Amino acid sequence: MNNKKASHIGRITGVALGPGDPELITVKGLNRLKEADKIYFPGSVSQSGQLSSFSLEILKNYGLPPERLHGLHIPMNKNRQHAGRVYDEAFELIRDDYNAGLDVVICTEGDISFYSTFGYLLERFQAANMTVELIAGVPAFIAAGAAAQLPISLQQDKLIVLSQLESVAELNSYLASFESVVIMKLSTIRHEIVDFLERANRPFLYAERIGTPDAFFTSQIERLKGRTIPYFSLLIFSRHIKTPFQV
Amino acid sequence: MNNKKASHIGRITGVALGPGDPELITVKGLNRLKEADKIYFPGSVSQSGQLSSFSLEILKNYGLPPERLHGLHIPMNKNRQHAGRVYDEAFELIRDDYNAGLDVVICTEGDISFYSTFGYLLERFQAANMTVELIAGVPAFIAAGAAAQLPISLQQDKLIVLSQLESVAELNSYLASFESVVIMKLSTIRHEIVDFLERANRPFLYAERIGTPDAFFTSQIERLKGRTIPYFSLLIFSRHIKTPFQV
Repeated sequence: MNNKKASHIGRITGVALGPGDPELITVKGLNRLKEADKIYFPGSVSQSGQLSSFSLEILKNYGLPPERLHGLHIPMNKNRQHAGRVYDEAFELIRDDYNAGLDVVICTEGDISFYSTFGYLLERFQAANMTVELIAGVPAFIAAGAAAQLPISLQQDKLIVLSQLESVAELNSYLASFESVVIMKLSTIRHEIVDFLERANRPFLYAERIGTPDAFFTSQIERLKGRTIPYFSLLIFSRHIKTPFQV
Repeated sequence: MNNKKASHIGRITGVALGPGDPELITVKGLNRLKEADKIYFPGSVSQSGQLSSFSLEILKNYGLPPERLHGLHIPMNKNRQHAGRVYDEAFELIRDDYNAGLDVVICTEGDISFYSTFGYLLERFQAANMTVELIAGVPAFIAAGAAAQLPISLQQDKLIVLSQLESVAELNSYLASFESVVIMKLSTIRHEIVDFLERANRPFLYAERIGTPDAFFTSQIERLKGRTIPYFSLLIFSRHIKTPFQV
């Protein structure tokens, strides 16, 4: 019991788990998880009702008491109203925990302020004037650079990050203007990628499920032909990719 | 003694220390530091010969044996030839350690593949076919987003990162085209920033020395007037900065 609990004011911390390798969490984030009374993690629920969570796969490695882990599962469809309702319900649960003086952690894969769904809970906490602390993490594209031993950007390079593109059409102008281009969450353009890479004829790094036992990296177009491109996937173009990357 | 040492082949690991808070290193990076026989850290030497190192300030917190710590101090001037010579000398030292079977860590503040000087050593290791492992870290702009409780980017936002700009002239077009703009290492445009922010009239987050006891954040132009802008400083423009950020 810490002082905060004794005075019946809880603590809310958002913890970024990093890209997938359980050891790529920060020391601060791991300490906060170990101290928490309750840990909420994001996941998804398919149309057939199946639950899955990349965050839970990471959390399983820390020896945390399972009864402290609570999933926030978002229905996998494009209906933002459903998702909004899940965030509303989650917000109410967490507000009750906070008012009960609990030490609550909400975690997220990758970083917490960089394309993270945590933003939807954060806006609710801020609207309710609740105090929240955020602990940063390693974004997936940063981990991909390290894994591929690639300087993503140096000195005065300009870098652009795109996510969930609707088509590859706009990529040519970005490739012409920026030394480094990162495209995250490729599944929206999965049917166009191979053709685009063939036309672009530029060194690239493709990475999926970075930091997990299923991680896959390649810089060879051949290895992407016919491949199923998952949600957690990215492409990096950089002038520092000098030779095709071998894995 | 691990197997690698027994067979007289060393290990070289590049470890990202993160933005400044000693607890924002990854668990993996800290473990590697603790195992290392020798730790090289970057620093600078002023024209009067004074040594300084932001990395060393972070390393001091981990209880590592001081005799294992070795500075690589780059002269603070624009002469890239001098810096190149320091990297050449460092490369030779580290190659000797590696050939002697030592476990060597080279560390860097922030991340290791994102605007890091580690890239200059990496190209030398790669040219010499030496095996290196890189351990990613939290970049400063990512840590700034968490500290300011700010979603830097969400969903399909486009984000651009600029570093060491030569002037603010090009910023207007970027601000018009991208939801999030990050500008790192502001000291090159320190005399133009206040004027630019007044003209732009857009919510911003300014951050310096993130994660250190001297960290400073503001979203108020008044607080930047007359301020000395250090090398480790950044600006974030994001459509998610809804109200001026208070610190």
